[in-house]
Amino acid sequence: MKILVLGAAGMVGRKLIEKLLETGTLCGNQIASIHAFDVGEPASADDRVTVQAGDITDAATVDAMVDVRPDVIFHLAAIVSGEAEAEFDKGYRINLGGTNNLCDAIVARKGYTPRVVYASSIAVFGAPFPDIIDDEFHLTPLTSYGTQKAIGELLLADYTRKGHMDGIGIRLQTIVVRPGKPNAAASGFFSNIIREPLVGEPANLPVDDDVMHWMASPRSAVHFCIHAAEIAGDEVGPHRNLSMPGLAITTGEMVAALRNYAGDAVADRVTREPDATIKSIVDNWPRRFDTSRAEALGFRAEAKFEDLIAAHVEDELGGKIG
Amino acid sequence: MKILVLGAAGMVGRKLIEKLLETGTLCGNQIASIHAFDVGEPASADDRVTVQAGDITDAATVDAMVDVRPDVIFHLAAIVSGEAEAEFDKGYRINLGGTNNLCDAIVARKGYTPRVVYASSIAVFGAPFPDIIDDEFHLTPLTSYGTQKAIGELLLADYTRKGHMDGIGIRLQTIVVRPGKPNAAASGFFSNIIREPLVGEPANLPVDDDVMHWMASPRSAVHFCIHAAEIAGDEVGPHRNLSMPGLAITTGEMVAALRNYAGDAVADRVTREPDATIKSIVDNWPRRFDTSRAEALGFRAEAKFEDLIAAHVEDELGGKIG
Repeated sequence: MKILVLGAAGMVGRKLIEKLLETGTLCGNQIASIHAFDVGEPASADDRVTVQAGDITDAATVDAMVDVRPDVIFHLAAIVSGEAEAEFDKGYRINLGGTNNLCDAIVARKGYTPRVVYASSIAVFGAPFPDIIDDEFHLTPLTSYGTQKAIGELLLADYTRKGHMDGIGIRLQTIVVRPGKPNAAASGFFSNIIREPLVGEPANLPVDDDVMHWMASPRSAVHFCIHAAEIAGDEVGPHRNLSMPGLAITTGEMVAALRNYAGDAVADRVTREPDATIKSIVDNWPRRFDTSRAEALGFRAEAKFEDLIAAHVEDELGGKIG
Repeated sequence: MKILVLGAAGMVGRKLIEKLLETGTLCGNQIASIHAFDVGEPASADDRVTVQAGDITDAATVDAMVDVRPDVIFHLAAIVSGEAEAEFDKGYRINLGGTNNLCDAIVARKGYTPRVVYASSIAVFGAPFPDIIDDEFHLTPLTSYGTQKAIGELLLADYTRKGHMDGIGIRLQTIVVRPGKPNAAASGFFSNIIREPLVGEPANLPVDDDVMHWMASPRSAVHFCIHAAEIAGDEVGPHRNLSMPGLAITTGEMVAALRNYAGDAVADRVTREPDATIKSIVDNWPRRFDTSRAEALGFRAEAKFEDLIAAHVEDELGGKIG
């Protein structure tokens, strides 16, 4: 079992490789090698892992990576929503051009049809939204990032239909609790208001308590990737892109869950200074999804928000809260 | 008013240019020039028309065409559904690569936001279908052609949203009566069974009488293009791709309309030899659309099938039937 991970230095990529090394198998087979590729040097001490820093917009680089015919390719490489919106050309070159390079490299090899797990996003959907969004809601993204992901989904489905690859697209939601430092992303506060108070720091909630959003833990994101590599393609049918299960919860309920899990002292570190800009962005975000197709295929996510907090405390804080 | 037509030698392209030359204006302005581009040499004796044969997959060729900053660009260039399905690489190079070249050439010119009229297709939608398909039905094409058109729609919407162009995508349906010779396309019989009997030739109906499909005349297709060039973009809103009005009619009703319009002798030239292959293809085709958005924006199509026959007899047969 040879594995290629594009975007190996990102948060999901790193955690996915850790999990694969720990399990040692994928699709029931021993993992012989993991080729970890990213624009920044991905790090790993494990001798099953080959690391490579490079540019996914370079067709020859991507072609060379596919030349060993990996059995499973995790395509997680992308610049994020805010950057793709601010840098139009760069977004298309990396998020669409990179995907095109991967498709071309696979098609060029006759008789080679790898399982490709493609990290898509709920950003493929655009407002106005129904209360509950199903897999068959129309694709009218309202960001460049969402457009690039929607195009990737269409390519994945058509290349799979024609037998050039065996692709599964997984629409990831906002991942909470994201480890690391607070960042400037509009969605950053969803993680900040949990992560920071747990280590004794204040964090601001810039929107009202009734803002509902769709979340899953980093641990679930890794499960989505691995499960997408392992499911039988013919059970999925021709619609190869699936919204992933998650938790629809309001910001007020998040803080209440933090209070319930970690106590008043921790939860009281959440400040409430409204930010009109962030509010107006978040107003256009989806709230809740119907993921019955993915659930029927065995994808699972946390049932309550305390589980997302616990996953963070166990995986990132060694079980201790500050 | 400078106009660029990509795909100028195709059926719609030729008729569009004829109509533009006849009217002499577009968007209320005198037409100064029409640049007619196609892979085969487009022909025109009118001195407002510059003809050019070339390859839309060549970025420099497309860039040079856009350099004069046409006010309106009609992007009708594509290889058809059957060819895109049979020749996978060629389909992506022309139908997607050509569109990418056009987008790149426009973005490269600062302060230039032409109206781009993009000929999309109802093939962006894939079975299973509801009885009536609206503009918000999900994009899950089941052909490479439909995938390429759906990607074009997404690019058009995002480039428009970011102010790089002012695009309108029009989803064309099966055009009936198509002039010319019978062809091997699976949809060919929809035109054959009208066009051939009208000139004294037999034509075969290979499917049952109750097969319903969505049609418009070549005359309407030209109207869709011109109207899409002229409507106000801000009335369209962020969803820039519109299914065009048409007529939902069964094959049996088509033959009855032919009988009504041209008499028994003509209608009796339709033979009925079933073709299982064509039947199975057509079974997956859409039947009827909700085009209320396009209609509210002023797009119009024929109200009854006799009008489609009459349009053909007037435009192609000089008013005479054989």
